[in-house]
Amino acid sequence: MSKGLPKRSEDYSLWYNELVKKADLAENSPVRGCMVIKPYGYAIWEKMQQELDRMFKETGHSNAYFPLFIPKSYLSKEAAHVEGFAKECAVVTHYRLKNDENGGGIIVDPEAKLEEELIVRPTSETVIWSTYKNWIQSYRDLPLLINQWANVVRWEMRTRLFLRTAEFLWQEGHTAHATKTEAVEETVRMLNVYAEFAETFMALPVIKGVKTENERFAGAEDTYCIEALMQDGKALQAGTSHFLGQNFAKAFDVKFQSKEGALEYVWGTSWGVSTRLMGALIMAHSDDNGLVLPPNLAPNKVVIVPIYRSEEEKEKINEVTKEMISKLRKAGISVKYDDRDTHKPGWKFAEYELKGVPVRIAIGPKDLENGTVEVARRDTLEKSVIPLNEEFTATISQLLEDMQANIYKKAYDFRAGMITKVESYEEFKSVLDEKGGFVLAHWDGTSETEEKVKDETKATIRCIPLDGEEEVGKCMVTGKPSKQRVIFARAY
Amino acid sequence: MSKGLPKRSEDYSLWYNELVKKADLAENSPVRGCMVIKPYGYAIWEKMQQELDRMFKETGHSNAYFPLFIPKSYLSKEAAHVEGFAKECAVVTHYRLKNDENGGGIIVDPEAKLEEELIVRPTSETVIWSTYKNWIQSYRDLPLLINQWANVVRWEMRTRLFLRTAEFLWQEGHTAHATKTEAVEETVRMLNVYAEFAETFMALPVIKGVKTENERFAGAEDTYCIEALMQDGKALQAGTSHFLGQNFAKAFDVKFQSKEGALEYVWGTSWGVSTRLMGALIMAHSDDNGLVLPPNLAPNKVVIVPIYRSEEEKEKINEVTKEMISKLRKAGISVKYDDRDTHKPGWKFAEYELKGVPVRIAIGPKDLENGTVEVARRDTLEKSVIPLNEEFTATISQLLEDMQANIYKKAYDFRAGMITKVESYEEFKSVLDEKGGFVLAHWDGTSETEEKVKDETKATIRCIPLDGEEEVGKCMVTGKPSKQRVIFARAY
Repeated sequence: MSKGLPKRSEDYSLWYNELVKKADLAENSPVRGCMVIKPYGYAIWEKMQQELDRMFKETGHSNAYFPLFIPKSYLSKEAAHVEGFAKECAVVTHYRLKNDENGGGIIVDPEAKLEEELIVRPTSETVIWSTYKNWIQSYRDLPLLINQWANVVRWEMRTRLFLRTAEFLWQEGHTAHATKTEAVEETVRMLNVYAEFAETFMALPVIKGVKTENERFAGAEDTYCIEALMQDGKALQAGTSHFLGQNFAKAFDVKFQSKEGALEYVWGTSWGVSTRLMGALIMAHSDDNGLVLPPNLAPNKVVIVPIYRSEEEKEKINEVTKEMISKLRKAGISVKYDDRDTHKPGWKFAEYELKGVPVRIAIGPKDLENGTVEVARRDTLEKSVIPLNEEFTATISQLLEDMQANIYKKAYDFRAGMITKVESYEEFKSVLDEKGGFVLAHWDGTSETEEKVKDETKATIRCIPLDGEEEVGKCMVTGKPSKQRVIFARAY
Repeated sequence: MSKGLPKRSEDYSLWYNELVKKADLAENSPVRGCMVIKPYGYAIWEKMQQELDRMFKETGHSNAYFPLFIPKSYLSKEAAHVEGFAKECAVVTHYRLKNDENGGGIIVDPEAKLEEELIVRPTSETVIWSTYKNWIQSYRDLPLLINQWANVVRWEMRTRLFLRTAEFLWQEGHTAHATKTEAVEETVRMLNVYAEFAETFMALPVIKGVKTENERFAGAEDTYCIEALMQDGKALQAGTSHFLGQNFAKAFDVKFQSKEGALEYVWGTSWGVSTRLMGALIMAHSDDNGLVLPPNLAPNKVVIVPIYRSEEEKEKINEVTKEMISKLRKAGISVKYDDRDTHKPGWKFAEYELKGVPVRIAIGPKDLENGTVEVARRDTLEKSVIPLNEEFTATISQLLEDMQANIYKKAYDFRAGMITKVESYEEFKSVLDEKGGFVLAHWDGTSETEEKVKDETKATIRCIPLDGEEEVGKCMVTGKPSKQRVIFARAY
């Protein structure tokens, strides 16, 4: 019934790739590093977008749209920013093709060279702050709370579906504030929105923290992040929220007149999550039979498969299911009814297991006699026979809620068992190799030590946790003093 | 109160540009030919997207996402297609910038040249059909009904906000079918979806028709379109639906095994509407005071402006409006309450007129005494005093429906007066110059005549109308026989 998926325990990486393809989520495109997001994968992304968009609007943000292209000179205006993005960007140099007169087919027209090259946006701070310059004059224009849903391009050499692709889809919030306090509050507010989304909809427990200087966004004063743990013990950064200080305001000369009449630079934030979340969702919950979707993000929460041996039986089942479907839909539960004759029930069962549909209902001639259906839940693969009575819709509704909670709890418990405190670098290395997970260790706060650990173990500091307790200790590598443990892990 | 807009009658083009900017819909970006869609403009586009997306899903389509980039060789695979798009495309040639060792700042790294240039998609037929090749084997895989919301780039030299920009947002449907009949049916089905959307939501009457060979999409066998009329008498193509025949299936070798076991090429369609619809919406209904929005697409259907001279009055008004707002929202009517102290009521009235909010409610001390409010409708600018009783919400709801119908009727009546049948080329030219609008004339069916008319009058054949009556006549230019009148107009 596993539709030929490799086992997680044998080859986690292969299991992931095959699952993404076989569950019809995404595939590699003919264009290097770019993916095709297939209809089923895109439907899950749309559910994510819907909930996030609602949360952004509830916190006062509006959507807008800024250009795909960034003039090369703009990218260079913030020193750290260009340093971070110049090495991996797609550059547009010409605006026309033509027929080669020497018979070489269609070629780039050398006469259509751009005066200034354009970069396909890897992120939009520069083009947005150059626009904000015209939008902001007075404190009355602040705060400016804007989000954009867009595609961005970062030229990655080693790509993996959803996790790392040259082009990806994301949202990027860009806000402007009159004071540092407000900007920091906004940075934290949006971090909390991401954490709530991850936990409530993705059923994904996350640790909120701050990045070290090494791992900071290019151009930010502080990068906040949420970090999740995958089933193979590797960490995945699921969202970031940046306090930009006045860096981009200074780079693009964005000043405002304060209430007191002074001319001051604006304070900024930016924050984003991407289709990478799809990778996190898949890797956190799925099993050897395929995808496991939290009901809150499932395009179809329920699938119904009729089992019949004759047209007469099929018609009788159709009659019963028609009413059931109508009631479920009225209760806001999305339902797919798969009565195709081209595929057998067993094939369909495996298919919907592979695709992670939370609840599968099978109904056959015996069920008709007994007034029951068979209900299978995807998370535990448990089956039960349930009477098709007046409480049926409420039962399914409750089951979906239970499943959402159960999927979260499973991920939470798994993570709890994968957080290890270590006291020495030796212990650190052996935990990393034997178990993985989040490793809490003391660190002396220097980039040198951080890089040494990265070089020697491939583990990075995922974050300095926001809710970490103060604890006096010594750096596991240098023995220098430390006031708080940080979280190390090998990561995606 | 006109916030300094030019008059339509004096300079329609300037009026349009100023309106788009002053109503906060869009503005030119620092990137040549690309626009910034501002939050208010984007909110209207989101309403359009929402309705269209629902209609696409109701007709069985799913969303997906395909790469931004198209390898140069792909674009060339369909001969007519490359001919149509090669002259105006953005070409990515490099994937990295670097610091110039000679102090020239950040430059394109000559060592990071792509082996094959990538085109930023001007439309996605090629990359999608190259993908469909792997998705389609059997008649069981058909029909394939997919839509994509995306940005596309066509390097336009003369741009205008929303109407013609180098980058624009759109949706592009791409479907594959087993038979020609099914593909043609799909082409017409989506044309009807567009027409229904234009008429029901945009309050925009449209003529459905087929393009002549000259005006056909590059790679299509037939292009269907909806044509609308703007207030200056110029036509605007508001949406197109293409029957692609087997052209792209042949170019990308997409075959399927039929029920009978034969291997056949797949039949295709594609169809799209873009942010150009925003231009049509603005130009069709707005007036010298600003935007006029059909209620069905207004981000805020109602705005409430309190009028007070003291904090005490303000508080009393707040109490009354709180209940009113809650009732309106329960009835599904979006409401904005503008109680800002920073702006005077008169300023707010002009602002919401400029932004086209359908219904403005003002409430002051006298209203409190009388239990009334003042209601102003944006389409006719009429005001009336209405009791704030139990029927109030229903009254507003009815008013919004009436306004939607009235805005449509006004556009319909205007267009009816701008459709002229002509019998001679002389008459044709004088109608074009003196009146504009849609001109119905006989045409001999040749590209030569069509081009002659275009060269001499700047009018093009907008379409051969689908519901046009057969009528024997003679071409107005050549006198050759014709069986049906076609629609000429000067167009955006």
